[in-house]
Order: sequence, then structure tokens, then C-alpha cells
Amino acid sequence: MNTDLYKILEDVRDKKISVKEAELLIKKEPYADIDFAKIDLQRKDRQGVGEVIYGAGKTPERIIAIVKRMQESSDDGILITRLSKEKAEIVSKELDDLFYHEESMIGIVGEKRKADGTGTVVVVTGGTSDIPVAEEAALTAEFLGNKVDRIYDVGVAGIHRLFSAMDRLMDASVIIAIAGMEGALASVVGGLVSAPVIAVPTSVGYGASFEGLSALLSMLNSCAAGVSVVNIDNGFGAGFYASLINHMGESK
Amino acid sequence: MNTDLYKILEDVRDKKISVKEAELLIKKEPYADIDFAKIDLQRKDRQGVGEVIYGAGKTPERIIAIVKRMQESSDDGILITRLSKEKAEIVSKELDDLFYHEESMIGIVGEKRKADGTGTVVVVTGGTSDIPVAEEAALTAEFLGNKVDRIYDVGVAGIHRLFSAMDRLMDASVIIAIAGMEGALASVVGGLVSAPVIAVPTSVGYGASFEGLSALLSMLNSCAAGVSVVNIDNGFGAGFYASLINHMGESK
Amino acid sequence: MNTDLYKILEDVRDKKISVKEAELLIKKEPYADIDFAKIDLQRKDRQGVGEVIYGAGKTPERIIAIVKRMQESSDDGILITRLSKEKAEIVSKELDDLFYHEESMIGIVGEKRKADGTGTVVVVTGGTSDIPVAEEAALTAEFLGNKVDRIYDVGVAGIHRLFSAMDRLMDASVIIAIAGMEGALASVVGGLVSAPVIAVPTSVGYGASFEGLSALLSMLNSCAAGVSVVNIDNGFGAGFYASLINHMGESK
Amino acid sequence: MNTDLYKILEDVRDKKISVKEAELLIKKEPYADIDFAKIDLQRKDRQGVGEVIYGAGKTPERIIAIVKRMQESSDDGILITRLSKEKAEIVSKELDDLFYHEESMIGIVGEKRKADGTGTVVVVTGGTSDIPVAEEAALTAEFLGNKVDRIYDVGVAGIHRLFSAMDRLMDASVIIAIAGMEGALASVVGGLVSAPVIAVPTSVGYGASFEGLSALLSMLNSCAAGVSVVNIDNGFGAGFYASLINHMGESK
Amino acid sequence: MNTDLYKILEDVRDKKISVKEAELLIKKEPYADIDFAKIDLQRKDRQGVGEVIYGAGKTPERIIAIVKRMQESSDDGILITRLSKEKAEIVSKELDDLFYHEESMIGIVGEKRKADGTGTVVVVTGGTSDIPVAEEAALTAEFLGNKVDRIYDVGVAGIHRLFSAMDRLMDASVIIAIAGMEGALASVVGGLVSAPVIAVPTSVGYGASFEGLSALLSMLNSCAAGVSVVNIDNGFGAGFYASLINHMGESK
Amino acid sequence: MNTDLYKILEDVRDKKISVKEAELLIKKEPYADIDFAKIDLQRKDRQGVGEVIYGAGKTPERIIAIVKRMQESSDDGILITRLSKEKAEIVSKELDDLFYHEESMIGIVGEKRKADGTGTVVVVTGGTSDIPVAEEAALTAEFLGNKVDRIYDVGVAGIHRLFSAMDRLMDASVIIAIAGMEGALASVVGGLVSAPVIAVPTSVGYGASFEGLSALLSMLNSCAAGVSVVNIDNGFGAGFYASLINHMGESK
Amino acid sequence: MNTDLYKILEDVRDKKISVKEAELLIKKEPYADIDFAKIDLQRKDRQGVGEVIYGAGKTPERIIAIVKRMQESSDDGILITRLSKEKAEIVSKELDDLFYHEESMIGIVGEKRKADGTGTVVVVTGGTSDIPVAEEAALTAEFLGNKVDRIYDVGVAGIHRLFSAMDRLMDASVIIAIAGMEGALASVVGGLVSAPVIAVPTSVGYGASFEGLSALLSMLNSCAAGVSVVNIDNGFGAGFYASLINHMGESK
Amino acid sequence: MNTDLYKILEDVRDKKISVKEAELLIKKEPYADIDFAKIDLQRKDRQGVGEVIYGAGKTPERIIAIVKRMQESSDDGILITRLSKEKAEIVSKELDDLFYHEESMIGIVGEKRKADGTGTVVVVTGGTSDIPVAEEAALTAEFLGNKVDRIYDVGVAGIHRLFSAMDRLMDASVIIAIAGMEGALASVVGGLVSAPVIAVPTSVGYGASFEGLSALLSMLNSCAAGVSVVNIDNGFGAGFYASLINHMGESK
Repeated sequence: MNTDLYKILEDVRDKKISVKEAELLIKKEPYADIDFAKIDLQRKDRQGVGEVIYGAGKTPERIIAIVKRMQESSDDGILITRLSKEKAEIVSKELDDLFYHEESMIGIVGEKRKADGTGTVVVVTGGTSDIPVAEEAALTAEFLGNKVDRIYDVGVAGIHRLFSAMDRLMDASVIIAIAGMEGALASVVGGLVSAPVIAVPTSVGYGASFEGLSALLSMLNSCAAGVSVVNIDNGFGAGFYASLINHMGESK
Repeated sequence: MNTDLYKILEDVRDKKISVKEAELLIKKEPYADIDFAKIDLQRKDRQGVGEVIYGAGKTPERIIAIVKRMQESSDDGILITRLSKEKAEIVSKELDDLFYHEESMIGIVGEKRKADGTGTVVVVTGGTSDIPVAEEAALTAEFLGNKVDRIYDVGVAGIHRLFSAMDRLMDASVIIAIAGMEGALASVVGGLVSAPVIAVPTSVGYGASFEGLSALLSMLNSCAAGVSVVNIDNGFGAGFYASLINHMGESK
Repeated sequence: MNTDLYKILEDVRDKKISVKEAELLIKKEPYADIDFAKIDLQRKDRQGVGEVIYGAGKTPERIIAIVKRMQESSDDGILITRLSKEKAEIVSKELDDLFYHEESMIGIVGEKRKADGTGTVVVVTGGTSDIPVAEEAALTAEFLGNKVDRIYDVGVAGIHRLFSAMDRLMDASVIIAIAGMEGALASVVGGLVSAPVIAVPTSVGYGASFEGLSALLSMLNSCAAGVSVVNIDNGFGAGFYASLINHMGESK
Repeated sequence: MNTDLYKILEDVRDKKISVKEAELLIKKEPYADIDFAKIDLQRKDRQGVGEVIYGAGKTPERIIAIVKRMQESSDDGILITRLSKEKAEIVSKELDDLFYHEESMIGIVGEKRKADGTGTVVVVTGGTSDIPVAEEAALTAEFLGNKVDRIYDVGVAGIHRLFSAMDRLMDASVIIAIAGMEGALASVVGGLVSAPVIAVPTSVGYGASFEGLSALLSMLNSCAAGVSVVNIDNGFGAGFYASLINHMGESK
Repeated sequence: MNTDLYKILEDVRDKKISVKEAELLIKKEPYADIDFAKIDLQRKDRQGVGEVIYGAGKTPERIIAIVKRMQESSDDGILITRLSKEKAEIVSKELDDLFYHEESMIGIVGEKRKADGTGTVVVVTGGTSDIPVAEEAALTAEFLGNKVDRIYDVGVAGIHRLFSAMDRLMDASVIIAIAGMEGALASVVGGLVSAPVIAVPTSVGYGASFEGLSALLSMLNSCAAGVSVVNIDNGFGAGFYASLINHMGESK
Repeated sequence: MNTDLYKILEDVRDKKISVKEAELLIKKEPYADIDFAKIDLQRKDRQGVGEVIYGAGKTPERIIAIVKRMQESSDDGILITRLSKEKAEIVSKELDDLFYHEESMIGIVGEKRKADGTGTVVVVTGGTSDIPVAEEAALTAEFLGNKVDRIYDVGVAGIHRLFSAMDRLMDASVIIAIAGMEGALASVVGGLVSAPVIAVPTSVGYGASFEGLSALLSMLNSCAAGVSVVNIDNGFGAGFYASLINHMGESK
Repeated sequence: MNTDLYKILEDVRDKKISVKEAELLIKKEPYADIDFAKIDLQRKDRQGVGEVIYGAGKTPERIIAIVKRMQESSDDGILITRLSKEKAEIVSKELDDLFYHEESMIGIVGEKRKADGTGTVVVVTGGTSDIPVAEEAALTAEFLGNKVDRIYDVGVAGIHRLFSAMDRLMDASVIIAIAGMEGALASVVGGLVSAPVIAVPTSVGYGASFEGLSALLSMLNSCAAGVSVVNIDNGFGAGFYASLINHMGESK
Repeated sequence: MNTDLYKILEDVRDKKISVKEAELLIKKEPYADIDFAKIDLQRKDRQGVGEVIYGAGKTPERIIAIVKRMQESSDDGILITRLSKEKAEIVSKELDDLFYHEESMIGIVGEKRKADGTGTVVVVTGGTSDIPVAEEAALTAEFLGNKVDRIYDVGVAGIHRLFSAMDRLMDASVIIAIAGMEGALASVVGGLVSAPVIAVPTSVGYGASFEGLSALLSMLNSCAAGVSVVNIDNGFGAGFYASLINHMGESK
């Protein structure tokens, strides 16, 4: 994609490289193929972050294999999401510097990036049951080099609790608003602040919450304009997106 | 149902009435049958309000016929909901005391009941597009004898607008919270006040509002406890229910 | 919200308190922050009832911590909903006055409020499978100071069973109608009585009941006007709402 | 299908017909092919009723052509459903004995079958808005040779209206219960009588009735056992099915 | 309902019974109230069959109690549906004449009614996975006094299998067509025979079968007219309905 | 994509073309950019057919502009789908060789490809209302060089009609099965033949057909294995896909 | 909210203002109440942009009134969305500097903000039918002070068209990806670039696109991490959100 | 169906066989009836492949019985799908030549058909979690006599991985594209190649993937024309369909 095509062509013309070599260079695979998976080794160049491993639906053995292959190419930390406790135990035997956070099912191998984002990512939740998703978001954002401020259990049914945290909300560079049930938190926060709000519906609730559908629709229909939405329970996606925004000022 | 069965049986025993007459009295139809409809003439006794005419799906001629039959039995005012402008024009030719409110499609023949409810019914809306439903609720509540306070366009995306009306909300006996899109208004209001809140989702919005489904689910999942819900766009139902609550103190 | 703002300002003017103290008083958090949760200690003032603990998704340890913190501020009883048997056993070791009702998963610490509501809350169910939800509603209403009359298993498929209880229904101040499957009970009851009806759809049933969706839609579309609806299986919400209505006469 | 295969084979053996002729007899099309449609001329033999024309989505010209072709093969009356007023006017110019009922959009060419069913088909509706569907059912049943008793506007919100018609319900051979909104009528009727009930949900209503989905789910979940369901607004299907049941005693 | 009201009134007039007694007779509950349930003892008079016990969601103890109470009033057999193997084992210890069929989860206490229906109830299934629902239907129909013919695994993907059973289908008095996945069986059978078809969608399948929704919609949209539908997996309802139809000729 | 990269690189090496020219060749846009649209001029090379214009949502003016631009690059015929009668009239004024088929809303400019497919594409429909979609499929297949055999109105409710066409079905190279309502046609046909079946659900029907959803789910759940599905009413897609299969034998 | 509370309290203490005045200052409504609407005059301070008028569901008269009131408080331009052509004609008579763009239904009164954002907002669409939504997004972003680059009709079915615009995508500060039907564009773009992507599903399509639901779900499930989603057809929301991000570097 | 009817009739005429025998021949069941199942022994003649056993919902005993009965009639290999590990262990004790692949839950008894298809079936997946479905497809295609090329983990979020496999895609005779979440892979592949694409949505994902619904809708709405879809997770169906297409050139 960002291969210097012109350079290669010049080299061909100048016969520094053969036609075959040039063809290879143009076509060559920018990833490592390890039997069952294709690891994207250029994503850091392309997207500013290394490969992240989605742990659900992968055996511990495959996770270990992917991590090891990635470590051959780079010294960066590696984030593993949706890593169940059982898998984490097996993985940690092979990878002894694995940091594991049970509630959010986040695993981290190696170092987090230092907090070099422009401002603070604020993570707010409606209730205490939203905390696992919130921690997935918060730890992801921290891993990617952001300062994070957590404000939990400030749902709209007791809105004065939210207002007590007004100053911290006002100081946010980006806000991640996480709520299940009626998902109203995103709209209320979106109406109060000027920072972009990333809304995460959660599957918390019962009955007509329909596994997060209620909060999802509510957030998509937010009457506040500065709100966008990610998938139900997708704390990782919200943390990643917040980091993208929070690093906007950086030279690319 | 509430026929004095004992009294009838005594009359039979005492031969004041014949067995046949008694059977008739017990069985006799407590409604007027006018060909295409069965008008419930005892609902006022049973439910404290007279028959209300649901205007959608009825021809103007049928509406007129029902009104006239009802007027034979009672002097009470008659409420007609979902009365389109076209139908209202035809109806008003026959029933010259028809009051008609176009935006809410409410028609009233005769007098409203005087405002004898315990307190005030407050009607709040999230936006200006919710006003037709709100007026259906407000006019219904007024028709049934309630003082109504209207607070419109105070949606949660600019929550300070809602807080400016805090005193009026605090004084409410019952609150009708009407909103489309994300429907968060009901939860926020429900968390602020001690009065029961009747939530009305509206079909206002587009896309993922799915004709009011988003607001409906949101309101059903309200994390505030004092909130119940009626059908999408059902302003009448909310006004009726509010009136029931607001007349609780009355001797039955 | 209901802070006496004028009083504080006078005290500032009169230098009884410093500007800093005043600012603190206005801003100070009307809740207790215990690490993972923010307990609303003023809800009783604001809404007439103390904080209720939603037990699902909280560890027993967190439930115990919240209860203990609440007991520091008030002697009122505390209601815990959706408390599984396993959690209840752990909680009861720390809180030895825990009353626990297994079928409804309701726990109560301390005293119920005495039954001081205006009238009787009648709880009716369509079938025997609806009893867990019904007991959640009934126990909540009793906890909040209401006399409760239970009429179970009177579904519309054998409507004479419902009619046998006609007198008790007629005496109700508020009715909670609980049914799964086709949810017709709410409409039938709503058409018979003048009291407000709170409909609770349950997830009882199979196939096209779609986990309570069928009953929910049915109840929202009730052709009887005095019916409002709460979330599927939300016995607590119905009991709470019934109590609000049943205490309407009270001075606020 | 029910061709006398044995008879044909005997004729072949006895050389009354040639092998080719036999093959033709076995294979020959038991319908008339008129360019755009294949008219089933044996359905009367197979199912006891002639072809019925579903008028929606067919031009008047095609309807006329089908009727004419059918009249060549049989003198029986022909039922046309979902025939809009505009089409009926065009059709009636060509087919001057067309009977047309505007509200139900039913057209009949020729004679109805005489009422030779075992008992009475009772058609009940919840409201007046259900009448078009009810008339489609009633006219279909009459066309197919059934005595029909119509009981309209007896919805469960005023259940005493239904009870006044108890005797007529008790006398029914089959009952067609038609209702929109919450569709509770089918369950209540199903619990009262021993006759089979055919439930027809209608698209009457608004909001969470979702074009009849609410009534459909409600009826499918009926807690009364003797209830089966046809498609939303399918008055014809209900009338047809009722006729099948009401002619059960007949020798086939 | 079917109380001889006239007779009671005569007795009052003739002073054979007191007014109080008469009132009691008119009002008295036609069911047995055993704490947690109200057993309908007159259903046999009203609907031609005794109470059936829906076993799901009832403890074995409650099932035993209901059976015993029913046995006090009648010698008829008792049908228990959705009786899990675990419950059946407990129940059979107390009720030693319990017949139990594991695949269909049907239990029967006492005798089936002798097969006195007019004709034969044919039960067809699309696949072998539909057999549990089919047996629930077949055993119910047999319990209620019907001769049953089972034709299993004749789905439309190999339609010649269905045609081999053509004669048996043609002889049916009523047909119960049971299928999951695309549910086409009901339409095909409905087009071939003149007997009424009761369609039962099953939750067999995966992916876009959405737990039986696909088959349900398919069956409701059957282009064959003589088809009605019951709830997903509702074998009992189909068997019951088939029995109602198959006993049509009987004097009521 | 399929540019001969090696050839270009050789030319660079051999200095037949400059580096700049090579870069251009590799990068150059294989489509024509005409302001509001990007016309894919290589699709014929890549996919064996030229660009097809989806007429819905494009003004007649834009359609004309696209056609004219395409005619500059190729003499092939051009297919326009979903071309309303109104638009067709305007388009035909500018493009006088426009062939237009109103029922299917298909327009063709220029010549169809001659029928050079391996075998015959058979198009079957369940009813006459499915014909517009069927003609879209049939005309598309003919346009792309296939012999088409149309068998209409052979739905499963009269399955002998389908069997009469057995020989034609058996001769098919590919079958397009088109049906609304219950969509059973695809399963039945799929079980009878060895040719691949492309199922097209149509939005024909009412009520629980939910605009084609019923037929779509039914077809996806087909218990016959050789069936795949395209979007509701997507006659074009089916015709295109059938043509791909029917030209399989061709050298690529 | 951001009132300088401390300052007010000091003024009270110093008696520069009375207690009454202070109370007023704290409570006073930060919006203009014009009968039917409450115009938020501080949103610019709070959120960096002035009030935007959602034109759907408002009469032209109300739109004019709101604009005029806003112009009293500020000289900023005013954006009106979903302004139909009919309304625009009426509005433009009163407000003669109204700029109106018919395809996107955007109206602008007064000046756009100069393009002062950090980088470029790139708007890409899958097809030409998505252009109205794209223009709503693009014009909104321009109004709010952003340089916009439009890349239309580059859907994934001809992915080389997208790659031709690779350089422009790589240069984007934020990308708005707009697509209907399968909505794959957002994922593909999200995987290629490091800029945050705002996905807008559109209601373009037919059949199983279900009015944009298909694209919405697809975008929410994007396997690329840097993608967030706004409501179906919500071009305005996307433009607004893009502007927030693109102005991140600004001092607040 | 494909019985030589003419031949039988000639034999009757020539008295080589009796009428009874002929009737039997015409009617005789082309399947083996083994109590609980009807095994289709002619499917190989009719559809080119033998019976396949759908293992879900069948006991191991029944699977063994079906296999043994099939082996009596043919020496062909037998494919068993959805065979759980537990069942496979039991089955393999009786059928010692059972090949079992755990991840795809495919079992094969006997020999695969040799790879005699025209070209190569390429199986591509979006992620590693789609591999079980992919292997079900690949093994099915191999069993049915096709050469298969597997390209896994090439989802659109890293589209260069897909492009690296461009040559292999270009060489495909048929492509099976398997993806969960947003399902965009099918559209992208469909736009790149001229071979027919069979899309298989998978239930991989969480939240708004709604068990594969998101990918299903996405694939049905593919803007690339050469794409058809099978049921969610239906690897077998895709492999079977691919084989049908890949054997198109064969004489039938």
C-alpha cells in the first residue's frame, strides 16, 4: 500500500534489482503466516498500534503461538482481549510476564505505551454491573498510551451523582460512556460536554433489554449530536477509538 | 357485575318479580347495541369515566351515530381521539358544539369535567415534535377533570432546560414524560421526583428509532423505579392513567 | 436539588459560613462513595424510599458492604432484589437479620415499613408459573408499607376463576396484573375495574412467547385504558409503582 | 393423484387404450393452463371446494380471464378475495352477475353453496375496526355452505358484552375470533367454549401493535388449548378452515 | 356459566332454597383452590376434557398434589405435559400407575379415553428430529380418544417419501403436520388433502431458523387454505385441537 | 488486478516505457469517472459481463449519462434494472434503441449476448404475483447469453402442477425458484432435481409474510442441500448468478 | 453549569449582589423560551457550536421564528437539517440569505465558519444513492469549519475504485464512510487507514436491507477497530462528530 | 419420478408383468424404511450424491443403524455432519473405518469420491474463528470429489492479506466465502473474481452480531452480483452447492 512503488521501479530500470525481485517486492506479504493465522506485522506502521489478539474462540496454544511470533518482530507490548481466566492460567505458564485483569478479561504481555495522548480519556458507567466493559475500555486506552479517569456508577436515575463529577467530565479529551438498560447516560453526557463521546451499550439488564439491544438503539438515537456508538459490550473498540482521537494532534 | 344480586333474589322470593324477569335482570345487556357497535353505557359507573370514542378506523357517520346514542343516556362530555381533520369537519356539521384540536386530533363534544383531581398533572416532552402526543395526553387529562401543567422541549441533550423546570416537576402529582428517539427523559425525570411517572414513547425520529421501538425499549428499561409505560404515541392512555392516579384520594 | 439554596446564600451574606463552605454545601455529594459504588443517601428524602439494592451482578461481598454503609446512615429496612440462594447464604452469615424468600429471590434486612398506604394492592397472576414475579411485587409492596392481597392462577382461559375474585378486585386501590404467554389478563382486569392496573409481562412460556415479548406487546396494546406496563419480569418495579400510587394521598 | 391407476393399467393390458394414451392419462395436467396462470380444475374433487381467486396482485383482465376459463369447466360459484373497488368495477362490466362487498373486498360470481354445514359458524370481533376482516371470513364461510352468526365489537376490555352473547357462542359449531391490538379475545373465548376456535389477528392498532404482530404472538401463546391461528388479516383462510371443520360429518 | 339459572330462581321462588343459598350457588367457585393453584373441575363439562397439567415450571410435589385433588373429583385419566425425566421419577413414586414417555415428556395417570373419534388423526413430520413434538401430539390425541396414524420423516426435500403415504393421508380425518427449518410440509400436505391441517412449527434447526421462527412464519403464510397453526413445539395444542375436530359429529 | 505486472516491469527494465509511465499503468484507474459516478470499464474482463445499471435512486439524466459513457468504451448491450415506467419514457427519448419491459422494470440498450450457455436456465414461480421478479431474472439471464425456460404459477399448494413440468425441471442446467409467502417451492424443487437451485424470496403476501422475510427465512432453512439464496425480490442477482453457473464450462 | 459559582458567592458575601440576585443568577435559564420551543443559547460556549435546527416535524413558521430569535443573540450562521424543498421555499421568503441544497435538504442561514480544523474530513460513499446523506455530512462539516474531500461511489464490489483514492484516504484527519446495503465500506476503509472512521449506514437498498438495518449491524460488527457508528442516514451527526475530532488540537 | 413409465406400460401391454405388479412398480417406495427414519436410496441417481446424515438430534445408535442400512445398498462413502465428539466415539466403536474431524464435527465412513470436479473450490474465511465452518465446507467438498484450496484468516480489516492470495482466488472454479461479524468478505471477493461465490455467514461475534444475523443480512445485501447465500454456519450446504457447480460440465 505505502510501498515506495516509484523507488522499486527505478531500481528495476537501473537493474539494481531483477524484474522477479521487483514483482516479489510489490506483491510480498506484509504479514506472518503461521499455519492457522495471518499476523499483520505492519499494522503498527499503518494504524499506529500493533496487532491485538481477540482471545475468544482461540485456544491458549494458538494465543501463545501468535504472541511468540509477534515478539520475534517487535518489542512492543501485546494486548489480549476476552481472555478467560482458564485460558489466562495456561497462557501465563508459557508467558510469565503476562499481566491479567480478571473482571475485564484483559491480558497484556510486555509494556504498555507511556501515556502520551493529548488529554484525558474519561470512562463513565451507568451502574456497577457495567464495570467489566468499562475496565476493558480503560485498560485498552491505558495500554495504547492514554491517561484514563474512571467515573463509575453515575447513571441517570440519580443524576446528581453525575453532576458531582462535572469538573472531571469537563476536563476530558474524549469520553467513553458505558451503560446498559436504557442507555440514557450517553445522551445526557453528550449534551453536557464538548468532547466527543463514544457510547458503549452493555448487555446488562433483563427482559426488554434484549441483551443490549435496548441500550444500543437508545444510544444510536441520542438526541445529543457529539455521540457515536460501538458494538454492545465492545469496551476494547471504545478504548481503541478514544486513543485514536486522543492522539489526533500527533504528526502522522 | 355490580348488579345487586341479593336484592333481585329477594324480589323473586317475595314474588315481586317473576323468575323470568329476574333472569332477564341478571342477564340483561348493560350496553346499547347500535348495529355495528356495542356502546358501554355503564363504564362511567364501573370506571369513573364515560365511553371514549377511538376515531381512527371509524367513518364520520358512525362516530356521529355513536355520539348521538351516548347523548341519549347521559349529559356528560364525550371525548373523541385520533379524529382526523377531514372527519372532524364532517362531524362538526352534525354536532355543532364539537371542540376540535387539530395538532392532537382530539375532539370533545360537550363539557369537560371540572378540574377536581388531587394535584397537578405535569406533561413534559423531549422535543417540539412530541407536542401532538403531549397535547393528546394533556387534553385528555383536562377532559377528565385534572389541572395540567405543560413543560415542552426539555430533552436530556440540554438537561439544564429540564432543571429550570425543577420546581414545577417537584409540585406534580403525576408526571407524563413523552419522548421519541432515545427516550431518556423518562429515566432522568423518574430519578428526580417522587411522583409516579407515566412514560409515552413517540414515533418521532428516523433510522434506528424504528417507529418508536427505540424509545419504547429505553423506557421499559428505565433504571429509575417509579416509571411505567404505555403504547407508542398513546397520549390518550397516559392522560387517562394520570387521571386515575390523580383521583386516587376520592371515595369510590 | 432540594437544598435550601436561599438559606445558604443568607448564611454567606451574614458570614455565618465562608464562601468556601457554601460552595462545598452546594456542591457536596449527596451520596456515599464506597470505591465501586455510589450510594444514594438522599433518595428517601427525594423519593420517599431508601436505596434498594439490585442483587444481580453484584458479589455478596459488595452487597454486604453496601448494606453496612447504608446502615451507618439510617435505621430503615433495606430491600435486596434478585438475590440468588447462593448469595443469600453468604450474605446471611454477615447480616444475621436477613429475611430471605427463595422463590422471589427477595432479601430484606431490617424492618418493613408498616402498612400505611391508602388501600390495598391486589396482585393477580395468570398462572402458577408467574408466582416468583408476583411475590417479588408483593413483597416489595409490603416492604414499602402496603397491604397486599394475592390472587394467583386466575388466567383468562378459565375466566370464571377470575370472576370469583371480583369483590377483591373491586376493593383494590391498585392492581398488579402479572401474566406470561398471551398476557390477556391485564386487558380483562383493566376492563373490569376502575383502579389503575400495572401490567407485568413474564418470560413464562415457550416458542412464540419469545422470552416475554408476546406478553409485553399484548399488554402495551391493551384495549383497556387504565393499564400501564413495566419491564418483563419486573416484579420489583410494579410493587414500587403500586406503592407510589397507593400513597398518593400523603402529604409530601 | 387419485386417478384410478389400476383402471388405466387394466385398460392397457386389455388394449382398450394404447401405451401412449395411458402414459398421457397418467401424466396429463389436471389444470387449465391459460398463459399466465395454471387453474386447478380438480381442486373441488380433491378439497371439496373450487378454485378461489386471490385478487390482490392480479389485473382485472386476468381475473376476468380466469373466471371465464373456470366457468367453462363448472357451474359452481367463484369467490374472489382482496378485490379492490376499482378492480371490481372493471370486472363487473364483463361479469354482470358479480356480487361485490366493498368493506371486505369480497367478490362472488354465481351462486353460493347452500348452507349444508353441520352447525353454525360464529364470527366474533374485538372491535368495530376488525369488521372488514370479519366480513371476509363470514362471506367466505357463507359462500362455502355454512350458516354464519356475527357477533361484533365484544372485546375483552368490556367483557360483559361478550358474556351477553354467551348462548350464541355456546351454540357454535366453530368460532372465528378476530381481534387486533392485544388479541386477548381468542384466549377468553377459547376458555369459555368447547368448540374449536380459529383466531385471526388483525393489523388494527398502532405503535407496538407492529401491524398485527402483537395480536399474532398473543394468539399463538393462547393459554386456552382449543385455539389455532391463521395469518394476520386472513379472514378468507379462517372462513375456509371453519367450513372444513363444519363439514366434518360429511361422507368424503 | 352453564349453571341452570332458571332452575335456581324457581327454587328460590318456591322457597326450596334460601336467597343466601341461591346467591352462593350462583357465585360458588367451580374449581378447587389448593393453595398455589386453582383447579378447574368443570372443564370436562365445559370443554369435553378434564384438566391437563402443564408440567414445566411446577415442582413434582405440586404436580402430585394437583393430581390427587383431581382424582378426588373424577376417575378420568390425567395428562401431564412437559414432564421432565427427573420429575417423572419423583412423581411415579407417589403415583404408581403413571405412564411416562420420555422422548415426548408426556405422563398419563389413569386410563386414556377409548378411541371414539370420527376418523383417524394422522401425524406427519418433516424429519426425525421432530419426533418428540410429534409424539406429544400423538399421545395427546390418543389420550383424548382418537385413533392416530404416525408418518414420520417425510419432509419435502424427498417428496416421494410423502407420496408413498398418500393413501394414509387421504384417509385422515385431521392431519397434524410437524416440521422445523422451512416448515414447507404443511403447505404441501395442505394442498394435497381435503382434511383440515394443523401445522406445528418446531424449534429444530440452527442459524436462520431462529428457534422455530422460520417454520412458524412459513406455516402462517401457507398458500394452501386449509392450514391453521399453533405455537412452536406445541404438540399438545395440536393433539388437543385435532381431537376437538375429530369429535365434531358428537352430540354436545 | 489482473494487469500483467511482470510485463510492465520487463518494459521498464527494457526502457520501452518510463518509470513514470509504469507507475501510471499500475495505478491508473480502471474506470471512468463522470462526476457523480465511477463506471467500472473492466468489469467485463474481470467478471465476464459489462457494467449493469441499477436504475432505482438514479435520475433519468444520470442513467443516460452513464449509458453514453459506457457506449464510448464498448459496443456491448447494457442492462438497466429497476427502471420505472416514468424514467423509461424519459430515457427512451435520448436512447431510441431502448427495449423496455414494464412488468419487470428491465431496460436493455443494444443487443443481448447470444445464448451460448451450456444448458437451460429454468425459472419457476410459486404464483402469478411473482412474475415481475421472475421476468427480471429471466430477462437478465437472456441478456447474459442463456436459454431460458419459464414455468410460472406452480406453487406447492397444488403440487401436481409442478410435477407436470418435471421433465423441463430435469433438463435444467440451473433452476431459479421464485416464491413469496411460505417459500416452500425452493425446498421441493431442490429435493427433486440435481441442478443447483437459486432461490429468490419475494415480497408478495401480507401479514406475517413481513415483506418477504417469511420466504427468505424459509429458503435459507431449506432442508434440500442444493439451494442457495439471494436477496428478497432480487431477480437480477438470480439471473446473473445462474448465468455464471451456466457458463462454467467456458475457458476463462 | 460552568457558571462561576465561587464568583457569585463572593459577590454575595461582599454584598455586591443581593441574595435574591444570586439565587436568580444561579437558577436563571440559559435558554430562550419562545412558546413552543426552548432555544439553547449557551450551547456554543458549552459545545463549540451554536444551536442546529432539526427541520423535520417543524412548520416553516416555527423554523423562521427560531432562526429570528437566535439571530437576536448571535451573528453566527445557523444550520437547518432535513429541510424539505417545500419548507425551504417558504422559509427563504422570510430569510433571504438562506442557502439551500436540495439533495441533502440542508439549509444554511448566514456564514459558515472558516475551515480552521486540523486536517481534512474525507467523505466516502459506497454508491451514488448514498450521496444525499453524504452531502448532509459534508455540508455540516464545512459549516462547522472543516475542509472536506468527497470521494463518492467507491463501494467494495469494485474495490480498485477505492484504492485509486488511497492517497486521499491516507491524508484524512477523519473519515466518514457512508454505505447502505451490506455496509462493508466502513470495515475495509477502517482496516486501511489510521484515522478514526465514522460509519453512517444508509437506508438505501431493498428487501433484506430492512431500511438500513443490514448496514447498521454490519458497521457495528466491523472487524476493524477504528470505526464508530451513528444512526441510519444521520449525515448531520457524522459531520458534527468529525468536526469535533478535527478540532481536537484547539485550546478549549 | 424418473422411473421408466413407458417401459412399464409396454410390459403390461405385453403381459410381461401383471397389472398389480405394474402398479407396485410405479408406487413402490424408493427408500428404506427403518422404523424411525426413511432412508432415500435413490438420491444418488437423482442428485449425484448419496444420502448424507445430519448428526445433530440423532442418537449414536440411530446413526449407526442408518449407516448400516445404507451400506447394504451401496459401497459409497457416507458423510455425517454435526457429529459431536461424544457421539463420534460411540459410533467409531461400531464403525471402525470412521474418519472423524473434531473441529468441523465431520465424520466420514468409507471412501471419499476422487477429485473429479472441473476446477478448484477455494474456501476463504475472514478470521480464525470461522475455521470450524470452513472445514465443514472443505471436507464436504472433498468428500464429494472436489479439489479444495483453503485460504483462512484474510478478513477485510487487513485487506492486503486477501490480495496476497489473489492468484489463488483468480484460479478458483467456485469460491466459498465464510465470515461472521460484518460479513464483508463475500462482497469484496465477489467484486474481485468472476467465479460464483457462495457466502456462508457464521455465528462468530458478540453483541449486535445477533448470532450471525448481522453477517447474514450483510451477505444477502452484497452489492457484488455473483454472490448467493446459505444458512448461518451451514458449511455443509456451501460445500455441497460448490460441488454441484464444480461438476456442471459432467454429462448428467
